[in-house]
Amino acid sequence: MQETRISVDDIDDIALGATVLGTGGGGDPHVGALTAKRLIRLHGDVELMPLDRLSDDDFVVPIGGIGAPSVSVERIMAESELLQALEAAERATGRKPTAVMPIEVGGGNSMIPIAAAAIAGLPVVDADAMGRAFPEAQMVTFHLAGFKPGVTVMTDHHGNEVVTRPVDGRWSERLARSVTVEMGGAATMIDYMYGGDVVRQVGIPGTLSLAKRIGQVLNARLGDHSDVDPVRKLIRELNAHHLFDGKVVDLQRGFEAGFTRGSAELQGIGEFRGSRFELLFQNEMLLARRDGRAAAVTPDLIAVIDASSGRPITTEGIRYGTRITVIGMPADERWRTPEGLATAGPRYFGFDVDWEPIETLAARAAVGTEESN
Amino acid sequence: MQETRISVDDIDDIALGATVLGTGGGGDPHVGALTAKRLIRLHGDVELMPLDRLSDDDFVVPIGGIGAPSVSVERIMAESELLQALEAAERATGRKPTAVMPIEVGGGNSMIPIAAAAIAGLPVVDADAMGRAFPEAQMVTFHLAGFKPGVTVMTDHHGNEVVTRPVDGRWSERLARSVTVEMGGAATMIDYMYGGDVVRQVGIPGTLSLAKRIGQVLNARLGDHSDVDPVRKLIRELNAHHLFDGKVVDLQRGFEAGFTRGSAELQGIGEFRGSRFELLFQNEMLLARRDGRAAAVTPDLIAVIDASSGRPITTEGIRYGTRITVIGMPADERWRTPEGLATAGPRYFGFDVDWEPIETLAARAAVGTEESN
Repeated sequence: MQETRISVDDIDDIALGATVLGTGGGGDPHVGALTAKRLIRLHGDVELMPLDRLSDDDFVVPIGGIGAPSVSVERIMAESELLQALEAAERATGRKPTAVMPIEVGGGNSMIPIAAAAIAGLPVVDADAMGRAFPEAQMVTFHLAGFKPGVTVMTDHHGNEVVTRPVDGRWSERLARSVTVEMGGAATMIDYMYGGDVVRQVGIPGTLSLAKRIGQVLNARLGDHSDVDPVRKLIRELNAHHLFDGKVVDLQRGFEAGFTRGSAELQGIGEFRGSRFELLFQNEMLLARRDGRAAAVTPDLIAVIDASSGRPITTEGIRYGTRITVIGMPADERWRTPEGLATAGPRYFGFDVDWEPIETLAARAAVGTEESN
Repeated sequence: MQETRISVDDIDDIALGATVLGTGGGGDPHVGALTAKRLIRLHGDVELMPLDRLSDDDFVVPIGGIGAPSVSVERIMAESELLQALEAAERATGRKPTAVMPIEVGGGNSMIPIAAAAIAGLPVVDADAMGRAFPEAQMVTFHLAGFKPGVTVMTDHHGNEVVTRPVDGRWSERLARSVTVEMGGAATMIDYMYGGDVVRQVGIPGTLSLAKRIGQVLNARLGDHSDVDPVRKLIRELNAHHLFDGKVVDLQRGFEAGFTRGSAELQGIGEFRGSRFELLFQNEMLLARRDGRAAAVTPDLIAVIDASSGRPITTEGIRYGTRITVIGMPADERWRTPEGLATAGPRYFGFDVDWEPIETLAARAAVGTEESN
C-alpha cells in the first residue's frame, strides 16, 4: 500500500535510494537529508501525493538544486532560499502553488522538494521529470513532450533572485548555468511549472516511493542478520545489471563551467578480476566501458555503490582506492526515443558512441564471456 | 532655450556628442542612431523632458545596452527587444513607466532610450546616471546615493527575458554580466527604476542637451567655412583639457568576460612631437599617461577624436596608424567623492595609481613643460 506521509524516519531511505537513481549526481544526499529532517521537525510531516491524484486545477512547482555537486556538498541550504524561490514563483506566474515535485530523483534533489513542501505546507508529488538525475535543465520529460520551461526562478543564499523567460529548454539551461556559476556554483531552481493535467501526462510516476524502497533494501544491512548481501538483493529486486566489481585506480575530476566533470578507472576484483572498467561523468555517470567496450550508455542508469558499506557514491564522492560495485538499469522508455536520445544520449555529451540498450550490451557481454571460457 | 522635441534631424548630433561624453564606450553610435531614426520615423518625435520637470508620481525607466562594444556594433537592435524589456519592467514592478532615461550618456546608450521612448510614446528625460559612460552596472549615481538596483530586466534578440532582484549593485553587475555573455555578449537592460522624486535628486541634468551641443560643434565642420578647427572649438567650449595629438603605434584589444579590454600607445605629433601617450580601457577609456605620468584618470573623462574627421572614436573603433586628439574633462562632482572613487576610481579597475583631478594633473604638466623649456 502507498505511504501517504513522509516523516523524519523516511528521509534517510529516500535520500539513499534517490542517490542510486541519481546515478552519481542530483546533489549531495547527506546535506539534503539534514535540511529535510530539520524542516519536517519544524513544520510537520509531508503528504506524498500519487501522480494520478493531481487534478487539472493543481499548479505543480518542480524545485531542486542546480550546480555542481562539488559545490552543493559544502552548502547547507537555507530555509529562506527555498521560501524566496516559492514566493518568486507565485509572484512571477500569479498562481499559487498547490504541490511541489522533484524535477529529478537525485540524492539532494529528492530532499529539496520535501523540504520545500514542509515549509509551504504543500504535498510533494510522488514523481519526477527524469526518472533519474541528468546534468542539464532541459533534460526533462516536459521537454521531450514539447513543453517549454515557461518562467524559471533561481535564488541563492545571498538573497539574490533571478527570473527568466527563456525561449526554449536549451536557452533555459544556458541562462541558468551562467547565473548558477555567478551565484557561486549552486542555486535553488524552479522551472517547468505546469497544471496537474500536464504533470499527470509528463511525470514519471512513483519515483520517490521507488527511492524509498531502494533505500530500505540498502539500509537493511545493519539491522538484518540474513546472509544476503544487500547490493545483490537490490540487483535482484530492481532487475538491474551487475556491471562490475572493482577498485578505483585512477580518478580525474574537475569543476568546469558549472559542472563536476571527469572519469574514473577501475581494476576488476572477484569475478571481474583481470578486467578494467571506465566511468565517465558530468555531474551524473554517463558512460561505462568494460575492457574498452560500452557496458552502459546514457540515458540508461549507471549507479556506483561502495562495496563495503552498501552506500551509493556520487561522482563527487568517488575516492582513489575505494572498492565499488557498478550496477546499471534501463532508463524510462521516453528517454529511449529519438527525441530522448537527441536530448540526453551519448552524442549530446560529446561521446563518440551510439546508444544501445543496456539489455543488449549485457546480453552481448554474457555471450563474450561464455566464448572466452 | 531648451529644445522640447527630439526629431530625426537631432539624432546624429546627439549620437556624436554622446560618443564624446561616452569616453569610448556606451555602445556603437552608428547602429544606435540608425535604430533611433527608424523608430522616430515610425512612431513620431520624442519629447525631451528636463529633469526638474519630473513629478513625484512619475515612474522613470532607465534603459540601455549592456555588453562589449565589440559585439554591439555587429548587432542591429530589434524593436521587439526594446518593447519586451519595457513590458517586462511593467510586469515585474506592477507600475506603468511614464518616462525613459539614459542610464549613461554613451554613443549607443543615448540612442536606445530615445528609440524606446519613440516606441512607447513616452518622454525621454534630459539626464543620465553617470554623466559619461562606465563599464559596470553599479557605476551609477543611484548607487552613490545609496539606492539599490531593485528589479532589473534584460532581453535579447532571441526573445529571452531575465528579471533579477539582486541584493545590491555589485550583485546586479555580476548577474547581468554573466547573463549578457550567455546572451551573446550584448543585451538590453533596464535597472534602477525609481519614482520622479528619486530621479530628480540622483540624475545628472542636461546630459542629452549637452551631447547635442557637442555634436553640433563637431558636425559644423563640413558645412562651416570658418577657419576654426572644430576640435579646438569644442575644447574651448567645453573648457576641456587638450591632452595629446598623436598617431596610434600600438594597440592591444580583446573581448574578455563580457568587456572590450585593452590599451593603445600613441606617438606624439605637432606640439606633442617626441612624447609618448598611453590609453588604457575597459569598454571606456579609464587611464591616460603621457611620458609615463598620469594625464587623466577615471572617473574624469578621456575622449579620443579622429584628427582628420573630427569624429569621436570608441575603444572598439581605434585603429593602428590613426591620428587622434585626446581631450579630458572633469567628471561630475559626485564621482570625485570617496564613495565615487571607491566605485569607479582607478584602483577599482586594478590600476596602481591614485586619482588626482585632471585640473591638477594638467597644471603640473604645464609647469613641467615650462621647466623643460
